[in-house]
Formats: sequence, structure tokens, C-alpha cells
Amino acid sequence: MEETAEFVASRLEEWGIEVERGVGKTGVVGILRGQVPGPTIAIRVDMDALPIQEENTHDFVSMYPGKMHACGHDGHIAMGLGAAKLLAQARQDLAGTAVLIFQPGEEGQGGAPAMIADGVLRRHKVKAFVAGHLGVLSPELASGQVGISFRSLMAAVTTFQARVIGKGGHGAQPQDAIDPIVISAEVIGAWQRLISREIPPLEPAVLTIGQIHGGSSHNIIPNEVFLQGTIRYFRPAVGKLLLARLEEVLAGTCRSWKAGYRFETDQAYPPLVNDPSFTQFFSEVAVELAGRQNVQMLEFPLMVSEDASFFLDKVPGTYFLLGAGDPATSYPHHHPRFDLDESVLWLGAALLAGTARRFKSREK
Amino acid sequence: MEETAEFVASRLEEWGIEVERGVGKTGVVGILRGQVPGPTIAIRVDMDALPIQEENTHDFVSMYPGKMHACGHDGHIAMGLGAAKLLAQARQDLAGTAVLIFQPGEEGQGGAPAMIADGVLRRHKVKAFVAGHLGVLSPELASGQVGISFRSLMAAVTTFQARVIGKGGHGAQPQDAIDPIVISAEVIGAWQRLISREIPPLEPAVLTIGQIHGGSSHNIIPNEVFLQGTIRYFRPAVGKLLLARLEEVLAGTCRSWKAGYRFETDQAYPPLVNDPSFTQFFSEVAVELAGRQNVQMLEFPLMVSEDASFFLDKVPGTYFLLGAGDPATSYPHHHPRFDLDESVLWLGAALLAGTARRFKSREK
Amino acid sequence: MEETAEFVASRLEEWGIEVERGVGKTGVVGILRGQVPGPTIAIRVDMDALPIQEENTHDFVSMYPGKMHACGHDGHIAMGLGAAKLLAQARQDLAGTAVLIFQPGEEGQGGAPAMIADGVLRRHKVKAFVAGHLGVLSPELASGQVGISFRSLMAAVTTFQARVIGKGGHGAQPQDAIDPIVISAEVIGAWQRLISREIPPLEPAVLTIGQIHGGSSHNIIPNEVFLQGTIRYFRPAVGKLLLARLEEVLAGTCRSWKAGYRFETDQAYPPLVNDPSFTQFFSEVAVELAGRQNVQMLEFPLMVSEDASFFLDKVPGTYFLLGAGDPATSYPHHHPRFDLDESVLWLGAALLAGTARRFKSREK
Amino acid sequence: MEETAEFVASRLEEWGIEVERGVGKTGVVGILRGQVPGPTIAIRVDMDALPIQEENTHDFVSMYPGKMHACGHDGHIAMGLGAAKLLAQARQDLAGTAVLIFQPGEEGQGGAPAMIADGVLRRHKVKAFVAGHLGVLSPELASGQVGISFRSLMAAVTTFQARVIGKGGHGAQPQDAIDPIVISAEVIGAWQRLISREIPPLEPAVLTIGQIHGGSSHNIIPNEVFLQGTIRYFRPAVGKLLLARLEEVLAGTCRSWKAGYRFETDQAYPPLVNDPSFTQFFSEVAVELAGRQNVQMLEFPLMVSEDASFFLDKVPGTYFLLGAGDPATSYPHHHPRFDLDESVLWLGAALLAGTARRFKSREK
Repeated sequence: MEETAEFVASRLEEWGIEVERGVGKTGVVGILRGQVPGPTIAIRVDMDALPIQEENTHDFVSMYPGKMHACGHDGHIAMGLGAAKLLAQARQDLAGTAVLIFQPGEEGQGGAPAMIADGVLRRHKVKAFVAGHLGVLSPELASGQVGISFRSLMAAVTTFQARVIGKGGHGAQPQDAIDPIVISAEVIGAWQRLISREIPPLEPAVLTIGQIHGGSSHNIIPNEVFLQGTIRYFRPAVGKLLLARLEEVLAGTCRSWKAGYRFETDQAYPPLVNDPSFTQFFSEVAVELAGRQNVQMLEFPLMVSEDASFFLDKVPGTYFLLGAGDPATSYPHHHPRFDLDESVLWLGAALLAGTARRFKSREK
Repeated sequence: MEETAEFVASRLEEWGIEVERGVGKTGVVGILRGQVPGPTIAIRVDMDALPIQEENTHDFVSMYPGKMHACGHDGHIAMGLGAAKLLAQARQDLAGTAVLIFQPGEEGQGGAPAMIADGVLRRHKVKAFVAGHLGVLSPELASGQVGISFRSLMAAVTTFQARVIGKGGHGAQPQDAIDPIVISAEVIGAWQRLISREIPPLEPAVLTIGQIHGGSSHNIIPNEVFLQGTIRYFRPAVGKLLLARLEEVLAGTCRSWKAGYRFETDQAYPPLVNDPSFTQFFSEVAVELAGRQNVQMLEFPLMVSEDASFFLDKVPGTYFLLGAGDPATSYPHHHPRFDLDESVLWLGAALLAGTARRFKSREK
Repeated sequence: MEETAEFVASRLEEWGIEVERGVGKTGVVGILRGQVPGPTIAIRVDMDALPIQEENTHDFVSMYPGKMHACGHDGHIAMGLGAAKLLAQARQDLAGTAVLIFQPGEEGQGGAPAMIADGVLRRHKVKAFVAGHLGVLSPELASGQVGISFRSLMAAVTTFQARVIGKGGHGAQPQDAIDPIVISAEVIGAWQRLISREIPPLEPAVLTIGQIHGGSSHNIIPNEVFLQGTIRYFRPAVGKLLLARLEEVLAGTCRSWKAGYRFETDQAYPPLVNDPSFTQFFSEVAVELAGRQNVQMLEFPLMVSEDASFFLDKVPGTYFLLGAGDPATSYPHHHPRFDLDESVLWLGAALLAGTARRFKSREK
Repeated sequence: MEETAEFVASRLEEWGIEVERGVGKTGVVGILRGQVPGPTIAIRVDMDALPIQEENTHDFVSMYPGKMHACGHDGHIAMGLGAAKLLAQARQDLAGTAVLIFQPGEEGQGGAPAMIADGVLRRHKVKAFVAGHLGVLSPELASGQVGISFRSLMAAVTTFQARVIGKGGHGAQPQDAIDPIVISAEVIGAWQRLISREIPPLEPAVLTIGQIHGGSSHNIIPNEVFLQGTIRYFRPAVGKLLLARLEEVLAGTCRSWKAGYRFETDQAYPPLVNDPSFTQFFSEVAVELAGRQNVQMLEFPLMVSEDASFFLDKVPGTYFLLGAGDPATSYPHHHPRFDLDESVLWLGAALLAGTARRFKSREK
């Protein structure tokens, strides 16, 4: 939202940080140049809320009906501003440049690719990237613990939609129609078998059909059925295989029944892949700031997705998790009662700022 | 529509026929008592139009946007009024009473049961029933030919709706959800096998799912899926078996996947079954009026349905077809360009009136 | 069996009837020429037993282990020999020729087409055909009642076999195999929907897969799965449509999964269709011999098949049923305790002989 | 085979090692007590061949028709005897006891549990376990490289069988039967969806139906269908869930169709889980013997199974892989042309003996 972006931009300017407004539509970029030359590192936080009516009863709940920070991005803004202030205060120690990316539209609105397309990485010669997520995304992390992954941390996701195009008719005369509802049922069943039979069992992959719509009357066979879904996976080859096979199985089934079809992919996020060497550097920063006992090598990646993957696809870096709640008892992300343990916000800000400050030394 | 009902009622009164208005909501009943006492026969015509935008270019197309007589019920009104006039003119020959039932809401709005519930049969001690349908319903009939069936002519139909109640969740975490879209696909496939495996092959039966709706996003597993459909059949035992088995298969499948379900039947039409003895009488009337070469014993019944079946369930009688167009080249019923061959209307009126006039003699 | 054929041939010769042996392998043909010239009528009875161990305890049970007359063809031989004797005794009344066809291999071994191929119809210029079946095939017939149909009495049947050819592999690595068991399951489900969605509901049709075999170990994905089944129907167009669609759906499904397939039809019986005019003649003979109350017009055809259909495909005639047991309480045909009510055998013989005797007069 | 076991036993005795014969039927155990007391470590090698006809053309191919060492267990025997000889020669350095387990029946005949049941671990107070596999099981290993896993290396496997019990009948009358072939097809499809919808995507799991058999004729609906398959997984909870759900889905589907069922599990192997601490110790031995560049931490586990898992379920230890061929070009295990690169056998023997020799020091 424009107010949030403006609030962020004003704070940065207040602290003497150069600001770019309207990057990738409503993104804000703060540029903080160190005293001595050096490489540029990007710190990214996402700012967007979700279309959910908040059911919390804090004294700081959302003022906007039907919108709330149900994924903790308000905490991310706090972390980002905290890091900005810390870095501004320590500017004399900073070698190279820290670029603070305050990004809109992480929840499926294409915020990250829009800012990249608008030149935020290229223009500032960004050489490394750091970002993180607060909350209870991983059951492996207690509140205040930093979760680290040396490889893929989050899944790629591709959205697709399909139409099974039959031939409408009277429900009493199926022989004169081509029934797209019965054909769609066969397609849905067959598609699930792509996961169980064609994807190697050691490759995590999910196919979910999120919606199906067809017909408007009890006794008319409709012309077509609409299906929409997503696939999630880690290796690009797996995504490519799945998409090709989804269309082939749809085509084969529709051909069996003399039906037509449409198949289109919408948006695709790459997997979120951390750079092992940068992550090693980050883990040392994290041990220093949080204590060894609070830094966890994550055993499992997450099937959910995050558009920071677009940045990490271009620039080496790391994406970390910061436990901010008890994963066993907290409401999950995207729930109307989702809440953060604010006592960890200082650590988030420190991790972002600390990584930027120590980055120069690593590059030598 | 009220205007149509009032138009009919006025004409009947003009011709000296006693009228009941507002029977079963907007039905009109004309009562024409003959000179000598005798049994009562009911003549029924249906009056309702369909929510279809007419695409014909006659000089007498529908004046109401989005509504047209796409099933020929306007022709039925003409037949009914013609019969009324003929009988009124020949009142001195009439033994017993002719009750002219002008019925609304045949196309699924419950017109027939409403008029029966309002006493139209009981009040007038109706002993026999005659009605017919104009158009191109049977490929066996040329224009002007009368189609006769001594048994079941049209199928029974029962409408049902079902909900598969899963458990919504994130599309990336199917293990925490119960996916009602995948379960519904299994149910739809299984239900079709009831027709192919459990219904005797010599029993005509159809199951059509006319609509399916579930979900509103590509990456959220929805809570539930809605299904609606119809079954058609001729023997009540078949309908009863199918409904019971639909629910059992739904229940078994949902239990397999830990899902819940709802299953409800909405409306049910009985099969339209003619009385053999009355039909024999009617066929003789038809031969006399139309000529032997124009009276056809129909080889096949129709899978479509008609709510005159409610009357024939209570009172012996017959329902005939009157060819009014070339079945090979005409637009089908319910099509925006459906049209009637008006040159047969006189025969429709004559059949209805003639049956009523000759009815008394049969009873002796 | 040779002994049965020889027994029949000897009896015919004993009664002065000319005999052809070894027609269509083991068939026997008796030729009885009347005193005056006239057209030829064929009387056909089938002679074969079934590979079933008899469990009856009569004093006349089968002497051959594992073989019994579980379908009543022994009664048919008795009827045929009875008719032969009656006609031989009344030869002076016979105009034209009666050809008595004693046929082997009705139960799927191709007996009828073999005798036709061997010239039995052509050689004797057969102009009409009569045959019948004893037992409890129709629930509409009491013992001693003659069942008559003016049209199709029994279904056509076509046998087919299919192979789904996948690619074998280790059960732990499905991604490297093409699993023909899972694909076959999809094919079997899809095939049933051909019956419920593509065949007009008023057309009786059945598809049954009688056997499926694939694999020999719990943890190896096999190379292929074998399926065999039959379709039954009345109109040749329906059979043709079903076979074409079975292969198309198999092909489409296999293509979806990159599998190959084989599809072959084995034998096909045409539907058994009576000639209306000859059947009218036969019904008059039946009324004369059995009494009007014992002649029933059958309401329903039978889904089972009979190879007399091959004769009726070439020559007009009729196939009747003769009730020989109580359909409600008797063991069904092909059961180890199947039995006939022998008190009706005289009527069977009389119907066959009487039809032949009266045939000439009809032709005038 | 007895000859192999006797050959092994004789060699061990020749080298002064105490021998137990017939342990768990045909297993051989060598006990080599060191000079000073200490804990007992078990070295296990498997000895069995496979029922495959060898197609190699070495001068040392199998002499037994239809049997060959298609999984490299002959190499394991060589490794085991090599280790025995090395340890016997270095007995003065050995602290504690080395128990050499030569096991039969690894390929599904229950060799490991039989030897455990016969007391091989208990009797000798075994405190640690080491074993390995030669060949090309992992694409991550070149010939001569040692593959190490700190956690689960191979999947658990459970074999199950099911019967769908319908009701046989004539293929023309499905309404009087309960068709187990059509029901089995539905079950097979539904079972696959357990993998794709109910198992967390990050949990590797496979379900394979390896065989299906039902029916013996094209036109008879059989009484039942037999299914057999395996599931593979890593966490016991996943296996337990899958087995319970397989039976529930089978039960639900059969209940839908009024069919009965049987469901039984046969044998189950636990997952092969290495002990992290012992594996750390082993990896140091491996680095010392093979060089750091030849010791690989395996990124992926294997979906195949191995009954050494039964030993590792009782005693901490490690199971390693030793590359013996080029994974890109070699014939796979269980192939008639499978072969080993024998130049690595010395390393296998050295790893087993070296681990035993260094074990004592670790325990201090």
C-alpha cells in the first residue's frame, strides 16, 4: 500500500539514507554507501498484507477491514527498518554499499520480478543477497532460533489452468453429448498418478487442483469444465517434466473421449536455492549474534514458496528462517489469528545489518 | 404468467365455460358440464415458457426478452382452447363433464403436483385423463402423425445434490487436508459404474451430473465440492435402487478418505405410464380423426420426462405425441430456434375434444 | 461327441431318413423329402454338453466325469429325434423337404457357422428355419409355455482381448518403468463409462471383463497385463461402435502413459433376430398345438446369446423358448444341478414337426 | 547353498578362527577373539545368489544353470574372507572380539532375522556392526569410492496381499454379480492417491502393485481378484500409516460395492538406519584407507532395501556402499550381465578389517 511505502521511505530519509521510490510500482529502495568502496549487498524485506479479516484482539490489530498481516510481513518491515537504522548509525564501519529493498506483492502479485525488471539489482551492481522470514514456518525452530539451509529451502511453484471442452446436451441423452464432468473426473484421477508413478520417490513434488467449476443445471450436460491448480517441486527438470506430462495426460484422456482441451501455465516461481558458500558466511554471523545453540541447520526444506527465489536466482545469497512463536501451539501463517513473538525482532534486524557489515571482510 | 392465465380464463368464460382461477397458484380450470350426467374426464395442457432468448424471426415471436415458447406449450394452449370451443359448441352431445386443466410450471416448477394438491382431480371426481405433446420429440413421427404408447412413454426423473465435505488446506500440504476435489472425481467415476454394472442392461437408466463446483483459488484445497445431477428410469424400483446405491457409493468413498458428505434428493417425477385400456380407446378415436396411416404405435419410449405423469399416477388415461415438424431437420425442443408446424393444431384440438366427447359411450 | 452324432444318425436312417454325416466336422443332417415338391425348411437342434461335473442324482445322469448336459441340449436331441419320427411317419402329408440339422459346438465352439460353411443351407436350398430352447431362460414362462418374440430374442456377443504393454522395472523405482497394472485399472474404469455415457440408454448393451492377469512378483512392475472380455448388444451398429470405442479409449489411455497395446476381437455372434412374418405363422402353429393360454409373446429379449443366430442371419425363421421347469425355483442353466421338466418334450417335438408340416401351405 | 557355507567355514578354520555352522539354518559365524579384552564388533557379509541365468562370458561365470551372483554377493564373500584373513594375521593387535557373520538369504528369504533369532548378536554380546555393498547402487559413486550416510540409507519395505471378493456370474448379467475386476481397478487407482495426497511430499514413499490375477474366461465374472504389492518408506510411522490406509481404502471401496476383502501383510524390512556417531568413526577409517577424495557423503538415500537393517535395528553401526563399476555404463544389479569391478575388493576387505581393528580404541 502506498502509505506503508511512504512511511518506510520517510524513515529511511530521516536517517540519511538515499531513497528510490516507486521501484517495480510501489517498492522502496534505500541505498547506504559505506565510507570505503566495496561490493554491494542487498537486504530484502517484503511489506504486503493478506486479504483476511483479522481476529486478533491486540491493541495494534489491523485498521483495515478485510486486510491483515497474517504472514508476519509487518515484522519484516520492522526488521528491515531496524537494520537500516543500525547500518546508518555504523556507516563509518561499512565497506561497500548496502541496498535495502522494501518489496510489495510477495503473495502472488509478482513483486520481486517487477523490482528486478525495474533494475534494482543491475543498477546497484548487487553481488550478494540476504533475507529472512519470521514466524512458525518450520517445526524444527523454537522462537528465537535461526534456521539455515545450505541448498534448496523452498519449493518452486507453477500455476496452471485447464479446460476440458466437451459438447453440451440434455442430461437424458448422454449419447449425443460429450460429458466434460465425467472426463474431468478421469483427468483428475490420472494426474495424481503422475506424482505417485512418474516422479522419483526421492523428489518432493505436489500437484493440487484448487478449483473445479462446470455446469449450471442439474439436467444439462455442460460444454466445458474449468480446472485450476499448482505444482510444487525443487528441481526445474521435475517441474518441466510434470507440466509436459500434465498436458499429455489431459490430451490423451480428452482424445479418448473426443473432447477438446486448453492448458495454460500462469505464473511460476523458481525454487528458493541458497548459495552454500554465502550461507556458510551467514551461519558464522548468526552464531556470533544468536549463539551457537540458537542456530539450526534445517533438515527439511519447505513445500511452500517465496518470491525471494527470483533474487537468489540472479545473485548468490541466503534466505533464513527466524522462529517467532511456538510451532506446536501458534496459529499457522495465513490464519486470522496469526501472531508473531515480537521479542525476536531485534535479532532479525541484527542478522540483516550484521551480514551487511561483515560482508566486505568476507570478500577480501 | 398471470397474463396468459387471464387470457385463457377470459376466453373460456366468453364461451360459457365455468372457470376456476388460481388453482395451484396460477393454474386455470374450465368446467364444462354435459347435458346428461356421466363421468368426468380431464383434458390437460401446459402453458409455461422457458428462460431462453428467442432467435426466430416470425411475425409472432416472443415479446418478452429472455423468454420464449421453446417447447411448444403455446401450441398446447391453442389446442386446449380449440378443444374447449369445440366442446362448448357441442355441449348438447356431451355426457358427463370435461374438466380443462391449463397448467403452469411444467418445466420443473412443480405445476402438476400443485394443481393436484389444490384438489383439481378430487373436487371434480376426475375418472380419466388425456393430454399430449406437440413437436419433434420422437424420431418415429412425421408431422401430423399421432404417436401412441400402451405403457411407459416417458422416463421418471429424480434430481439430487451431494456435497463432498473434506478439509481445506494449503495446496502445498495435502497431507494435512482432505481433498474434496480428488474425492469427488473418484465418486463421479464410481457412480457411472452403477449404470453399467448394477442396472439390468434391459432397464433403461441414465445418471448425469450436471454441475460440479468447488474451490476458489489455484493453491488452496477447498473444504467441499458441490455436485448436482439427475437420474432417469422407468420402473420405480430402479429409481429406488439407484438413489440408495448413489448414497452408499458416496458414503463408502467418503469414508475411505475420511471425508463427510451430504446427499439429498430434490424433486422426483414418476414415469409417465399410460393405461392400456384407455389408450386402446384413444387410439380408436385417433384413427377416426387422423386416419389409420397417421396413427403410430411408438416402438421406443423417451428418456425425457413430463409432469403429466403426476396426473396419470392418480387417474387412468393416456399421453400422446403429435408430430409437428420434421424430426430430421427441425431445431430440437429447448433450442432458441425451435418452431412448430401449426398446420397440425386443428388435429390436436380435435383429439382432445373428440376423446372427451366419445368418453361417455366407452364407459357404458 | 462322435457317439452322440452316430446315435442320432443311426436313428434317422432306421426311420428311412437320408443322412449326411460329418457336416461341419461332427454335425449330422437328416433329409426328409415330402411326397410332393415344395420349399425346404430346416429344423435345428444342438447336441453339445458342457465341461461341468453333474451333481444331480437321477438314474440318467451323465456317465462322463466333468461333462454334463447343463443347458438341456440332451432334451433338444430328444425333441429333434421326436420331430424326425413324427415327420417320417407323416411323410405322405409332407410337401417340400424338411432338413433336420443336429449341430455340435453351440457353446462357443463355432458349430453353426461351421455347418453353414459346409453348405448345409445352400445345398438343400433352405428357405425357412425353426429351432427352440428348453428350460428356464425366461422368467416370463411357466413349464409347458411357448415363448415367442417377433424381433430380436437374444443378444449379439463379441469376444475381445487386449494387452497393455508397459515397461517392467523394480517396484521401488516406478519412475523408470511404465506400470501396466495401474494403466489397466484406468482402462477398465474408462471402458465402463462407454456403456453409461455413449450407448443410448434405450439400447441394451453390456461390457464385461472376464479376466485380468499381470505380473508374477510383489516387487517387480511387469511388462504387460492381459485383459479379456465380451460385449453384448442387439443392433450391429451398437456392437461396431462399442468395439471401435473400446480400442480408441485403450489407445488414448495407453498414449497418455507412453504404453503400447494390442486389441483383438475373437469370435462374434450376430443377434438372434426372428422374422416377424414367419413368427406369426409359427405362433398360429403353437396356439393350435399348445393352446392359446400357453403361448406367450415375450416382453423382454435375453442378454445371453445363441449361435442359431447364424442360421437366422441367412434364412428367415423363428427361435422359440419352451418352458421346462419353474423359473423361480429351478437351478439355472449351466449349474451342476440343472434339470429339465421332461413332460414338455412331446410339445417340443410337436412344435418342430408341426411347423415343418404346415410350412408348405403357408407358402402358397 | 551348503557348498558355499562349507567353503567359507573351512577357510575360516584354516586361518585359526573359531566357527559356528548352521546359524539361522545355513549361516556361518567366525569368532576371532583379540589378545586383550574388549567389546565385540560384528562384520556381516551376505552370500546368496539370485534365480537368474547368467549371460556373462567370463571364465568365472556361474556353474549353476538359472542361478547367478547378479547382486555382487560373491564379491561380499571375498571381502569378508579377506577381512577375516587380515584380522587373523593381525590378531595380536586386536582388542575385543570380531564376529564375522556370513549370512544366507538376503534377497527376501529372511536370512538376517533368522540369524538374529538364532542368537548371533546376543550370544556374542555384539556392540557394533559394519557391513557394505559393492556395485553400482548409487549414481553418486565412481568405482573405488566409499559412500557414507549418517542417517537412513535404504528404505523399509513391507509386502502385502489383498483379495477383492465379489460374486461371480454370467458376463451378460452383471446386475446379479459383484464384479471384482471393476472393483479392483477402482482400488488400484485409489491406492495410488494415498501416495500423492496423504504422504507428506518430503517423505519418500512408493506403492507398487506387482501382480493382479482374476478370472479364467472371457464371459464369466469371477468370484475374486488377487493383488500383491509392496510399500517402501523410511520412517516407520509412514509405513504404519500407509498400511492402515491401504486397508481402509480397500474396505471402503469394497463396502461401496457390497464386496468382501482380505488384506494381509507378509514380510517387512525396517529402514536401514546408520548410527551417526559410529558412522563418523567409520568415515575416519575410510578416509585413512581410501583417501579423502574417495569418501563421499551420499546426498540421497536409496529406495531399495537390504536386510542388514535388522542388525542395525538392534546394534549401532554403519552400512556403506563401495563403488565397483561405472554407474553410467554398467549393467544394473539383478541384470543377467551384472558384473563387478574386482579391483576394489581389497578396499572392501580393508574397510571391514580396519573398522574392527580400530574399534577398540574408539570405545575408550
